[in-house]
Amino acid sequence: MFKVNDNYLKLPGSYLFSTIGKKVSAYSAAHPEAKIIRLGIGDVTQPLAPAIIEALHSAVDEMGKAETFHGYAPDLGYEFLRNAIAEQDYKARGCEISADEIFVSDGAKCDCGNIQEIFSLDNRIAVCDPVYPVYVDSNVMAGRTGTYDSGTETWSDVIYMPCTADNGFAPELPSKTPDLIYLCFPNNPTGAAIGKAQLQEWVDYANKVGAVILYDAAYEAYISEPDVPHSIYECEGARTCAIEFRSFSKNAGFTGVRLGFTVIPKELKAGDVSLHALWARRHGTKYNGAPYIVQKAGAAVYTEAGREQLKKQVAYYMNNARYIYEGLKEAGYTVSGGVNAPYIWLKAPNGMTSWEFFDYLLEKVNVVGTPGSGFGPSGETYFRLTAFGTYENTVEAVDRIKNMKL
Amino acid sequence: MFKVNDNYLKLPGSYLFSTIGKKVSAYSAAHPEAKIIRLGIGDVTQPLAPAIIEALHSAVDEMGKAETFHGYAPDLGYEFLRNAIAEQDYKARGCEISADEIFVSDGAKCDCGNIQEIFSLDNRIAVCDPVYPVYVDSNVMAGRTGTYDSGTETWSDVIYMPCTADNGFAPELPSKTPDLIYLCFPNNPTGAAIGKAQLQEWVDYANKVGAVILYDAAYEAYISEPDVPHSIYECEGARTCAIEFRSFSKNAGFTGVRLGFTVIPKELKAGDVSLHALWARRHGTKYNGAPYIVQKAGAAVYTEAGREQLKKQVAYYMNNARYIYEGLKEAGYTVSGGVNAPYIWLKAPNGMTSWEFFDYLLEKVNVVGTPGSGFGPSGETYFRLTAFGTYENTVEAVDRIKNMKL
Repeated sequence: MFKVNDNYLKLPGSYLFSTIGKKVSAYSAAHPEAKIIRLGIGDVTQPLAPAIIEALHSAVDEMGKAETFHGYAPDLGYEFLRNAIAEQDYKARGCEISADEIFVSDGAKCDCGNIQEIFSLDNRIAVCDPVYPVYVDSNVMAGRTGTYDSGTETWSDVIYMPCTADNGFAPELPSKTPDLIYLCFPNNPTGAAIGKAQLQEWVDYANKVGAVILYDAAYEAYISEPDVPHSIYECEGARTCAIEFRSFSKNAGFTGVRLGFTVIPKELKAGDVSLHALWARRHGTKYNGAPYIVQKAGAAVYTEAGREQLKKQVAYYMNNARYIYEGLKEAGYTVSGGVNAPYIWLKAPNGMTSWEFFDYLLEKVNVVGTPGSGFGPSGETYFRLTAFGTYENTVEAVDRIKNMKL
Repeated sequence: MFKVNDNYLKLPGSYLFSTIGKKVSAYSAAHPEAKIIRLGIGDVTQPLAPAIIEALHSAVDEMGKAETFHGYAPDLGYEFLRNAIAEQDYKARGCEISADEIFVSDGAKCDCGNIQEIFSLDNRIAVCDPVYPVYVDSNVMAGRTGTYDSGTETWSDVIYMPCTADNGFAPELPSKTPDLIYLCFPNNPTGAAIGKAQLQEWVDYANKVGAVILYDAAYEAYISEPDVPHSIYECEGARTCAIEFRSFSKNAGFTGVRLGFTVIPKELKAGDVSLHALWARRHGTKYNGAPYIVQKAGAAVYTEAGREQLKKQVAYYMNNARYIYEGLKEAGYTVSGGVNAPYIWLKAPNGMTSWEFFDYLLEKVNVVGTPGSGFGPSGETYFRLTAFGTYENTVEAVDRIKNMKL
C-alpha cells in the first residue's frame, strides 16, 4: 500500500498567500459592495513595458513560421539571454560571472524551492526571521527541519536569525553553525537592506564554516542607496560559497510571465563535487526550460529601450513606497523599509497581533496587507504593505488607513 | 560543512538526451559539411498553428494594458483552460473529471519528475523497461531506488516490467507488489499502445494492492485505433488509484512553449490524506503557475479552429511515422510502433548494440536516433526514431538508411 510523504503533513496551515486569498474571497463574497484594495501579495499592477510587448509579438511571429520555430530550449537557457545577464547584471557591476554559470528558469520561487534538493537531508538551514515562507516550507517538505513547536511556531532543526527593530532588521551571524544560509536582500518582508561590508561579513563567515549562502536578490532593482550591493558576487570570495537567485517578476513585472535565473559559480564545490553540475543535472532531468517567447521577452529587459522603460516602472512603484511610508509615519505608525525595496514593514497598532490587524484593516477599511507573523515568529505584531498597487489605489489605501479609527 | 545529496552521485552518466546532444555536436564540429537529420529527441518541427499564434498575440496585447494585465496566475491554473480541458479531454470521453482536479503546469516532464515528492521515500516504484528516463532518474535523486548494478544496469529497489517483442511491448503485472506504477501509453519509447481491457486490468490491480498508477498520456493525440483509451479515467475505478499527466508538447507543438497538466481525482487517498491536497500544497509552495499568455495559447487548442488545425498537424507527423515504418520494414528491419504513437521502435541490425547503431547511423548516413538502451536494459539492441521531423527530412533519412550498407 502506497504511503505519502509524511513531511507534508507536518506543515502547519496552508501556504500564507493561499490563506490570505481565501480570507479575502470570503470577505468579498459576504460584502460584494466593498471596494477592496490589495497591498498584500507582492503582485505587480503595471502592464508590461512596450519594449517587452514588442519582443513578445516578434517571438510569437517566429513561432508561427517553420524557419524560425523554436522547440525545446537549451538546458541552461538561450545564450542570447544568458549573455545579456552576464554582461549587464554581473560584468557591468564588476562581478566575475560567466554565461555558463547562469541557469534560466521560470522564476525565483521555483528555484528557491527546488535548490535544497541538491543538498544532503542532514544539512542544517539558517533563515532570517521573519522570512519568505518558501525557504522553510520547501525544507519541511524534504524532511530537513525536525519537529514543529506550535507554541513558538518554530522548527527544532532550523536556525532562526531574528531580524527585529533592535538590530535594524539585519540578521546577526548565528551562534550555531549552519550548512545552508538563506539570505534575501533587499529583504522580503521587512524591506531592509544591508551594505556591502555587512554582506562581506556573511561571505567570509560562510567560507570559514563551509556553509553555502542561498542569496535571493529578487528585489535588487529597487536599490536606491549606493552602498547596497546588487549581487552577492560584489563581495570577495562569494564564488566559493554563494548561489544567487534573480527574478524578472519585480524589475520587469513578469509575475504572470514567469522568468528568473540562478547563478552557481563553478568553484562552488563540496570536495570535488560541483554544485553547478548537480543543478545542471536537476535542470536536465526535472525541468524543460522557460518558453522561447518568454526568454526573448527577458532579453528585451536588457535593451536600451527596455532599461529606460523599466527604470520608470520601478520609479513608479517606489513613489508608491514613499507615499505609504510617509503617510503611515505621519499617522503615527512605526514604519521601516521602502527605500531599497518595494515593501513597507509596520508595527501593528494598539498591541494587535498581525492577523488581528489583518482582519481589522480588511473589515474597517477594506485594505489587504500581509500579516508579519506569516513570515515567522519574529514577524508577529508586524505587517507588510507592498508598493505594487496602482498609484491611485495606494493613495486611497493610505488615506483610508490614516482616517481609520483605532 | 555542507554536504550534497549523495543520491545524485549514484546516477550513471548524464541525462540521455544531453549525451546525445553532446555526441551530435562533437560530430557536427568535426564534420561541418555533414547534413545531419535529427530523428532522435522527440522535438517537434512544425510551427505553431494559426489559432494558437492568434491567441498568443491577443494575450500579449492584454499584458500590455493595465486593464487587462495579468500577474500571478491562480494556483491550479486559469479556469478558462481547466474548464476546456475538463469538458473536451474528459467529459466528452465519458470521464468524470472536474476542473478543480486539474493542475496546469509548464509541462509533463516537470510533473512526472516532481510527482514522486508527495510519496514516502520507502515506496517501491515499478517501471516499464524500456522507459522514459525521467521516472527512474527523479526517484534516484530522491533516494528511492537502492543501489545501481552497472552490469545489469538496474537499481536494486526498482521493479522492472520488461516490454519486449515477446509480450508485444506491453508490460505484465509485476510479481513483486509496487506502491507506485509508472505507465505511459501510447508508449515512449516503443510506440506501443494497449487496449481498454488491458488498462482496466492495471486499474483493478492497483486498486487491489493499494498502488498508485502514474499514467503518462502525453501521446494520446496520436491514437488512431478505436479501442485504445485516451485517458486512464476511461477505466472504472481509476479515480481511486490513478494520477494522469498530459502535455501540450506533442498534440500542439508546445515543446518550446511549455504547458501541461496533471489530474488528481479527489478520491485518491492514503487513509484520510488526499493526494490532491498534497499536490496542491506543492504547487502553492514550489511553483508559480504557467504564463498567462501560454495558458491562453493552451485554451486555443480547444477552439474549433485550433482542433481542426492540430488534427492536420498530428496527421502530418503520423504520415511521417508511416513512411518510416514502411520504409524500414521494406529494408528488412524489424519495426513496431508508429500506429498510435509518433515513435518507431526498431531492432538494431547485425547484432549491434543500441549505441553501436547510434554511432553507425550518425557516421554513415548522418541520421540521429535514440539508442534503446538509454531507456533501460530491455531497450538494448533497440533504437527509437521519431516522426517529428519535417516530411522532407524524414523521407531523406529513411532513404539514406535504406541505402546504407550494413
